[in-house]
Amino acid sequence: MSTAPEPVTVIGLGNLGRALAATFLRHGHPTTVWNRSAAKADALVAGGATAAATAGEAIGAGELVVIALLDAAAVREVLTDAVRGRTLVNLTSGGPQEARELADWADEHGARYLHGAVYAVPQTIGTAESSINYSGSEEVYRRWRAPLGLLGRGTFLGPDAGLASGYDVAILAGMYGMLGGFLHAAEMARAAGVRAAELTPMLKSWLADVFPVLSVFAAEIDSGDYGTEESGLAMNQAGLDTILRASRSLGVPTDTLTPLKELVDRQVAAGHGAVSLARAVESLRGAA
Amino acid sequence: MSTAPEPVTVIGLGNLGRALAATFLRHGHPTTVWNRSAAKADALVAGGATAAATAGEAIGAGELVVIALLDAAAVREVLTDAVRGRTLVNLTSGGPQEARELADWADEHGARYLHGAVYAVPQTIGTAESSINYSGSEEVYRRWRAPLGLLGRGTFLGPDAGLASGYDVAILAGMYGMLGGFLHAAEMARAAGVRAAELTPMLKSWLADVFPVLSVFAAEIDSGDYGTEESGLAMNQAGLDTILRASRSLGVPTDTLTPLKELVDRQVAAGHGAVSLARAVESLRGAA
Ligand SMILES: NC(=O)c1ccc[n+]([C@@H]2O[C@H](COP(=O)([O-])OP(=O)(O)OC[C@H]3O[C@@H](n4cnc5c(N)ncnc54)[C@H](OP(=O)(O)O)[C@@H]3O)[C@@H](O)[C@H]2O)c1
Ligand SMILES: NC(=O)c1ccc[n+]([C@@H]2O[C@H](COP(=O)([O-])OP(=O)(O)OC[C@H]3O[C@@H](n4cnc5c(N)ncnc54)[C@H](OP(=O)(O)O)[C@@H]3O)[C@@H](O)[C@H]2O)c1
Repeated sequence: MSTAPEPVTVIGLGNLGRALAATFLRHGHPTTVWNRSAAKADALVAGGATAAATAGEAIGAGELVVIALLDAAAVREVLTDAVRGRTLVNLTSGGPQEARELADWADEHGARYLHGAVYAVPQTIGTAESSINYSGSEEVYRRWRAPLGLLGRGTFLGPDAGLASGYDVAILAGMYGMLGGFLHAAEMARAAGVRAAELTPMLKSWLADVFPVLSVFAAEIDSGDYGTEESGLAMNQAGLDTILRASRSLGVPTDTLTPLKELVDRQVAAGHGAVSLARAVESLRGAA
Repeated sequence: MSTAPEPVTVIGLGNLGRALAATFLRHGHPTTVWNRSAAKADALVAGGATAAATAGEAIGAGELVVIALLDAAAVREVLTDAVRGRTLVNLTSGGPQEARELADWADEHGARYLHGAVYAVPQTIGTAESSINYSGSEEVYRRWRAPLGLLGRGTFLGPDAGLASGYDVAILAGMYGMLGGFLHAAEMARAAGVRAAELTPMLKSWLADVFPVLSVFAAEIDSGDYGTEESGLAMNQAGLDTILRASRSLGVPTDTLTPLKELVDRQVAAGHGAVSLARAVESLRGAA
């Protein structure tokens, strides 16, 4: 099973791209790199990488082309007809629709396409803490499993190129919800005389305690059956009221929490006060 | 150390109060109960409790009076001069200011006051999954540690009666932030063709991966030093933009996430794009 490491190309040497290229180099892959601002290649070249003069030249250097640019628009600017016959693995963040459009574009231009969503910071790329969800061409995922596996633990989600991004934007929306809640919590605690460092261990422990509830909610959402023995929407409405009132009386704006209260209010007003809080998701439907 | 279980009184037999009284009964405490709607005492009386005809009579039945009513206003309606010489342990949710006012009221009426914030659902009261933060009279906490310990693992936070509620409303604000994020995530996933049950394990695993970041943010917030090597406010602004755009293009309203974006925008506009996302907390300051 020990074959010589194959050539790889990395397009985009921002924080993520540089970490990707450095990982390939560390494992002995002949690595060709390109970045719009050429200077970002310098340290990699010193480490053994080959800097291409143009994106097209970099794409021509080998079959596997890994892309890490700012957004889908930058990817479309950089990719040219040079992709014919190449395998594109795009780790650029974006929405599922953007990934599907890029996959279609690649198809029309004779390239194979795999999209990846990276769960790592540049510092953890290439370590056990990094994981990457892929979707699109399963053939590409299998063929390039070894070098891609150097970047982070891979999971293949399915042939729809938009799937990895769909999971990704949803997971990040969930993360930002938690982060927004954390910031609100920290400011309320401060106003009540508690340091963030005192609050945070208790908050984390409570959030972890609530994790199992998320799985219950998920089953309720998928089935559309929101019947519950646990505290329902009306009780959560009262709980949210208490917190919003306490926040205001502490002088802390309630911006990040008011919208959830409105989702809950709408379901209670529609007569669903006794069912699970998960039903508030229905307030997000039927828009646009 | 084995003394006979002492008499206790439980005021308020909603979902929480009934679970409290049942736990005391199960451990052999002579338990007197009172509820505005008398019928809620029936099952407890069948299990050995004594139902008092009035709140005053219940309060007169023994030294320890545990209270679990809807809110602070209900507590003020129910408590009377009968509290003189009694020990009030109030597990009713509310803001820190409400708890401080009740503590002052108790003091003026010759009663000792301990406030508790319950982390449990009624089903887990009296089990290892239940924990209760207390603040107010430390003397009460120590004196009644044994019966209170039956309800859930206790932690005493300090003599300010508002402290347990301060932590509580902050922790619940954090929890609702996470729940709002979860609902948004579930709806985005659905719109992208992913079931909530497929998304949730990945989301939970990513949220757990982000937990250590909360401690980093907490230290930054407490110190006011937001310098960071990790991805800063500007990068998070771009990330939030990607998610909001993806959400809109999936037809999912962005209500729960837009306010966080605005907190971030304000800090970036003020020239802080390179520092930690935690600085967004400063956008919550200086308001009324
Ligand atoms: N960093 C992470 O931890 C992380 C984790 C997961 C996902 N991601 C995603 O990975 C992608 C890259 O992230 P990053 O951290 O590397 O971002 P970054 O440091 O801001 O780098 C952005 C890269 O895109 C290039 N670029 C932007 N617009 C361009 C254009 N019109 N034409 C050509 N090149 C263009 C930049 O080139 P210049 O150097 O010339 O400006 C730079 O190489 C983003 O989609 C990000 O969301 C990053
Ligand atoms: N349940 C939980 O899991 C949980 C967990 C932590 C904290 N808590 C907090 O504990 C408290 C009680 O919760 P719960 O679940 O037991 O609520 P609940 O089931 O809604 O019960 C509310 C109780 O308050 C009484 N009440 C309301 N207004 C009153 C008034 N003006 N005068 C007299 N009694 C009045 C009700 O009496 P009637 O029966 O006559 O209506 C009932 O006994 C709340 O503050 C809640 O936030 C609950």
